[in-house]
Amino acid sequence: MDVIAWIDDRVRFLDQTRLPQEERYVVTEDYKVVANAIRNLAVRGAPLIGIAAAYGAALAVRKISEDDSLQFVERFSLAAAELESTRPTAVNLSWALQRIRRVVADTEGERLADRVESVLREARAIHDEDRGMCESIADHGVSLLREGSCVLTHCNTGALATGGRGTALGIVHRAWELGKVEHVYIDETRPLMQGSRLTAWELKKLGIPHTLITDGTAAFMMQQGRIDGIMVGADRIAPNGDIANKIGTYGLAVIANAHHVPFFVAAPGSTIDWGIKMGSEIPVEVRRDEEITQMGEQRIAPEGTSTYAPAFDITPNGLISAIITDRGICRAPYVESLRIHRSRAVDGHD
Amino acid sequence: MDVIAWIDDRVRFLDQTRLPQEERYVVTEDYKVVANAIRNLAVRGAPLIGIAAAYGAALAVRKISEDDSLQFVERFSLAAAELESTRPTAVNLSWALQRIRRVVADTEGERLADRVESVLREARAIHDEDRGMCESIADHGVSLLREGSCVLTHCNTGALATGGRGTALGIVHRAWELGKVEHVYIDETRPLMQGSRLTAWELKKLGIPHTLITDGTAAFMMQQGRIDGIMVGADRIAPNGDIANKIGTYGLAVIANAHHVPFFVAAPGSTIDWGIKMGSEIPVEVRRDEEITQMGEQRIAPEGTSTYAPAFDITPNGLISAIITDRGICRAPYVESLRIHRSRAVDGHD
Repeated sequence: MDVIAWIDDRVRFLDQTRLPQEERYVVTEDYKVVANAIRNLAVRGAPLIGIAAAYGAALAVRKISEDDSLQFVERFSLAAAELESTRPTAVNLSWALQRIRRVVADTEGERLADRVESVLREARAIHDEDRGMCESIADHGVSLLREGSCVLTHCNTGALATGGRGTALGIVHRAWELGKVEHVYIDETRPLMQGSRLTAWELKKLGIPHTLITDGTAAFMMQQGRIDGIMVGADRIAPNGDIANKIGTYGLAVIANAHHVPFFVAAPGSTIDWGIKMGSEIPVEVRRDEEITQMGEQRIAPEGTSTYAPAFDITPNGLISAIITDRGICRAPYVESLRIHRSRAVDGHD
Repeated sequence: MDVIAWIDDRVRFLDQTRLPQEERYVVTEDYKVVANAIRNLAVRGAPLIGIAAAYGAALAVRKISEDDSLQFVERFSLAAAELESTRPTAVNLSWALQRIRRVVADTEGERLADRVESVLREARAIHDEDRGMCESIADHGVSLLREGSCVLTHCNTGALATGGRGTALGIVHRAWELGKVEHVYIDETRPLMQGSRLTAWELKKLGIPHTLITDGTAAFMMQQGRIDGIMVGADRIAPNGDIANKIGTYGLAVIANAHHVPFFVAAPGSTIDWGIKMGSEIPVEVRRDEEITQMGEQRIAPEGTSTYAPAFDITPNGLISAIITDRGICRAPYVESLRIHRSRAVDGHD
C-alpha cells in the first residue's frame, strides 16, 4: 500500500477522507493540492505530512521556469510557507521543510534543473528514511510487549500515517507477526474516527484480530483487566518527555495509570522539538465546530451549537511508561534519556 | 416542554429520535405505539420510560369494552408484559408497572369505568411524583455547586429523560437559575450522541450557555482547570454506592478523581436496587455493532468490523463525591447513607 508516492513528476496520494468506503488516489502536479490535502486531512499522520510537504515543495520548484536564483528562493519560500501553515501541532512538517530549505540554500548558484533534482532527492530521502525509522521503532518497541498481549491503540499510527509500517501500530504489527499480540482494541477516536475508518481498515487488510470500541469504553475495559498495554503515537515530543497526541490520549494515559496498565508512546526522533522545554509550550490546534456537530452531511447537534474541539492534548511525562523512537527505548527521566537522541539528531540533520 | 402528556384520552409524546432536527410529537391511543417508542428510544431516560409505560397501560385498559373482570385482568396483563419487555434492564419500567398492577388488583369487583379511571389516576400520579422528585433532587443538589461553576455533564438527564426538569441536569438547571452555574460543558456521549442531540437541544431551549465536547476532551479540560464539578445520572445504584450509568461515566470518574474535581451522581431513590450488594452484580447491556460502525445510514468502519459496545459501565463508590436523590445528599460510606432511603422507600412505595 503506497499511501504517498512520487510517480512521473507527480505526487500520488490516497485520499484518507474517503476511507473506509473507497480507496481513492489523487494524482497532482500542483503543490496547493497537496497543501489542501494536508489541511483537510486527506493526508494525515505526523510523519506522513512531513513526507507530503517535502514532495509538495518538490512539485513547487518544478514549476519554476526561469533560471533566476532570487526568484527560485522566493517562489520556493512562498510554497514552503503555505505547506507549513496547514497544521500547527505536528513538528514533522516544519522539520521536513527545514531539510528542504537547507538543500535550497546549499545549492545556491547551481543550475535550475540541478536544484530541482536536489530538492526531489531530499524529499525522496525523507520518505525512505521514514520507512527505515518505522522498522527501527518496531525493532525496539516489540520487546516491550509480553506474549499474548491485548493491546489498545488510539487514532491511526500505521501505514496510513507514515512512509512505512507505522509507529505505534508498526510495533503492534511486528509484535503480531512474532506471535506476541493476541488482539488489538481500537479506540474509534472522535471526532474524525481515525480508529474506525483507518486503523480498523489497516488491521483488516493485515488480518490482525481487532475489536472497535468507543473512546469512552477504554476505561471499562481496563477495569475488567482486558488491556495489557496501550500504544499511541505522538505529534510532538518535548525534551522533558511531555507529548502532544490526538485528543483523548491524555485521558487514556490517566486511566491507564490508575489501572497500572503500561502506556507507551512511539514516534521517530524527528518528533522531538528541541526548541521547547515542556508540553505546555506546544500549540494545540483547535478545529471547526462542524467536526463535532456534523457527521458527513448529517447534523448531530442543534444549529449554532458551539464546541471546543482541540485536535490534540498534552500528556505529561509522568504518565508515560516509555517513549520508543527509531533510536531506542527511552525511560524517565526523559530529559536525560531523550538527550542522547539529540546529539545524534544534531549530527544527522542539523 | 411536555415530553409526554395524557390529552383527551390519548398519549402524546415527543419522538426523541428526530431531535435535534425536528420537534415531532406522536399522538396515539394504541399502547403498542408507546411500547415501540420505548423500544426504539423515541422515548428514553429511566424515569420517563416508567411514566410512558404507565400511560401505555392506561391506554390498554381503555380499549376493554366488556365489563368482565377476568378479561380485564387478562388483557391488562398482556399489555403490561409487552410494555415491560421493551427495555428489560430498566428498573423504572417494572417499578411503574408494578404500581399499576397493584391498582388493578385493588379494584377487583369495581365497575369497568371506575377501574379504567383508577389506572389512569395511578399513571398520572407516577408522572406527577416524578416531577416532584426532580424538584427535590434539584433542591438538594444545588447546594453542592459553588457560585460561578463550570459544570460538565454526560448523556442526557434533563426534561427529556424524566417527567420534570431532570435529575443531574435538573440540578444544573436550578443552579443556573440561581446564578450558580456559569457554563455547562456537554460530553457528546458516544455512540448514541445523547449529549449532542438531546442535552445541547435542551440547554439551547433553556438559554443556558453551553459548549459541546467529544468524550475524549473532558480530561484535557480538567487538566486546564476549566471544570469545577461533574454531574451525571444513574441507571442503577447498588446499596454500597456503586453505580451503573451511560458508558464513559467510569472513565470520567477516574479522570475527575485524578484532578480533584468533584464527581456527583443524581437519581431518584427508586434507582437504588436493594436486591443486590455491589456494582459488579449489575448486568451490563451490550448493544449492536451498528451503533458504533454506523452513523445513521452512513458506514464509518469497514464492513464486518466487530465491536464491544456496552451501553453502561460501573463506577465504584470510591470515585463518587456524593449521590443526590430526591430525599437528600448521600456521602460515603454509602452503605450507611443510602440505608436511610431504604426504610422511607419501603414506607412510601412498597
